[in-house]
Amino acid sequence: MLRNEMTKCLKIAYPIIQAPMAGGVTTSKLVAETSNAGGLGMIGAGYMAPTQIRDQIKEIQKLTSKPFGINLFVPQPFDVSEDSMKAANQALTTIRQQLHLPDKDNFGIADYNEVLEAFKEQIQVVIEEQVPICSFTFGIPSQEVIAELKQHNITLMGTATTVMEAVQNEAAGMDMVVVQGSEAGGHRGGFLNQEQESSDSVGLMSLLPQVTDAITIPVVAAGGIMDGRGLAASMCLGAQGVQMGTAFLTCVESGAHPVHKEAVLSISEDQTVYTRSFSGKWARGVKNHFILEMQNHEVYLPDFPVQNTLTQDIRKAASAENNPDFMSLWSGQSTRLAKSQTVEALIENMVAEAKKLNVNI
Amino acid sequence: MLRNEMTKCLKIAYPIIQAPMAGGVTTSKLVAETSNAGGLGMIGAGYMAPTQIRDQIKEIQKLTSKPFGINLFVPQPFDVSEDSMKAANQALTTIRQQLHLPDKDNFGIADYNEVLEAFKEQIQVVIEEQVPICSFTFGIPSQEVIAELKQHNITLMGTATTVMEAVQNEAAGMDMVVVQGSEAGGHRGGFLNQEQESSDSVGLMSLLPQVTDAITIPVVAAGGIMDGRGLAASMCLGAQGVQMGTAFLTCVESGAHPVHKEAVLSISEDQTVYTRSFSGKWARGVKNHFILEMQNHEVYLPDFPVQNTLTQDIRKAASAENNPDFMSLWSGQSTRLAKSQTVEALIENMVAEAKKLNVNI
Repeated sequence: MLRNEMTKCLKIAYPIIQAPMAGGVTTSKLVAETSNAGGLGMIGAGYMAPTQIRDQIKEIQKLTSKPFGINLFVPQPFDVSEDSMKAANQALTTIRQQLHLPDKDNFGIADYNEVLEAFKEQIQVVIEEQVPICSFTFGIPSQEVIAELKQHNITLMGTATTVMEAVQNEAAGMDMVVVQGSEAGGHRGGFLNQEQESSDSVGLMSLLPQVTDAITIPVVAAGGIMDGRGLAASMCLGAQGVQMGTAFLTCVESGAHPVHKEAVLSISEDQTVYTRSFSGKWARGVKNHFILEMQNHEVYLPDFPVQNTLTQDIRKAASAENNPDFMSLWSGQSTRLAKSQTVEALIENMVAEAKKLNVNI
Repeated sequence: MLRNEMTKCLKIAYPIIQAPMAGGVTTSKLVAETSNAGGLGMIGAGYMAPTQIRDQIKEIQKLTSKPFGINLFVPQPFDVSEDSMKAANQALTTIRQQLHLPDKDNFGIADYNEVLEAFKEQIQVVIEEQVPICSFTFGIPSQEVIAELKQHNITLMGTATTVMEAVQNEAAGMDMVVVQGSEAGGHRGGFLNQEQESSDSVGLMSLLPQVTDAITIPVVAAGGIMDGRGLAASMCLGAQGVQMGTAFLTCVESGAHPVHKEAVLSISEDQTVYTRSFSGKWARGVKNHFILEMQNHEVYLPDFPVQNTLTQDIRKAASAENNPDFMSLWSGQSTRLAKSQTVEALIENMVAEAKKLNVNI
């Protein structure tokens, strides 16, 4: 069975990965409980400072002896143009007024070199703390970084949203690749064709077999998978396992804001949309007031991570006020399947359901 | 096995339906060969006149003794405003110049009552010619039409792109429902929320289990399915069978324009997009010159079928010149899996592949 390549390589019982959602969702408890239940817990460390990362790794190591992983954002060159920042900030001023927030004009925007430096520091922590698995989104790290991580026996997972991105991940030496369908919540993890319209994004049912035909490393399916049916279907399509975000986001152990969990649990499947208004990068979330208000400005907003920094005060204030209208409520399209449950129940039920469907787990 | 409900009800050997692609793709040979191979052939009769429909039914009956079906478009009220027609026509004039076509200002646009009358005549032919299966897109027919068809023992299939549309199809008395994911080529078959943005469209991996949880009639999966892997995955997600368009479109028996087949066979999976420029209704096709040129006009184009009539001369001229730049090259997202093959080979390989994946066909 090819499937065993993935679980064997990751040293886990079940081919189920908890997606490394950034922004505080992946608490130490969520990560550790997933690994303890036989899956792979992952720290969403994209936005985290090196010391934060180190502290969380140590905390998780106290909660589990099983392997867990970490995800980092690969920096991509971006523009910090005064003009686009000013235009975006003008649109955001209207939003700030609605939240009674003061105007802002100094954001302490980092430039590309600073972001690159921070990424290198994150990598060093991963190596020093001996995290066994490291995954990447938004790009493929340099050959130097890949070689260094491999020297330390760290298993590497890339992210792809197209066949071409999967091929490039394999060519760069990734051990496996997460293939993200259009159903997925949160940021699109791809890196080629950033200008793509949302209707270019390929659904998982279509993308998976096309990717598995094109590469030989194990493929992990992501996007809209919530239960044993999705796991079984993914394996029929050639994947060796799944990575799930939304299914873990509403778990009791997740650090998602209660208002965020509530929103995901209450909407129908067609109430999420792509937006780049929160961060400058396309991401799927619950359609809310902020997204609708920013829709007409979307084309000229600055790139990630500039726009993300610009909207920080807004998202923070909205969270503090439990106001879902201005929060980034990332969610995949399978909202009707989301449940408030423990990680253990989620994984146990999934495995039982997949086995019933004749899938060899 | 629940699956048997679908194949038993349709009296077919394999749970594989050839999608009723309109516009000349579903030749009598394509329909009959599909049914002869154990699947269900379907006439895409949406645009056809009653006499054409009658002739094709008789022709197919000579080629197969197996059941086959027919698809009709359910008329929805639409606006024929002078203003939107003029604005659209102005944008199309630029296109006509590129094709050396004369300007047009008289299109013989039908109004809603005429379209409704034509639909009723189509229904009468289906009844008179005793076509055993009738499917519907773009809406649910009236209770009168449904009752009349049922009285004649015709099996009825609806189309849904959301859970709510599936629920309404079941409530209206449909015997089964085709659930169309965002991967699907050609027109979106839904009817609620016509203004929806494309990123609202739900991927099949996510949509199928949410629909099968909500209704009890058999569900047929559609969108991006091309082979036994897609059939097996759909059944894991709760569907009882599949409907495939693109997989049949490139078959040797299909009536698709050779330039259309060639385009589908040559593009990568991320080169299709949604457009409403051709017909006034959202549809997925190969991104070409026409779509890109019309992109900025998309918002104000008149509704289906008005825009479809406006672009008729352009599509016709482009076809005659073998010019893919201005043709509606409908295609789903699984283009890398498309093959030039016979219907018999397609179905035989699918069934063998699905069986290997432990699916009970």
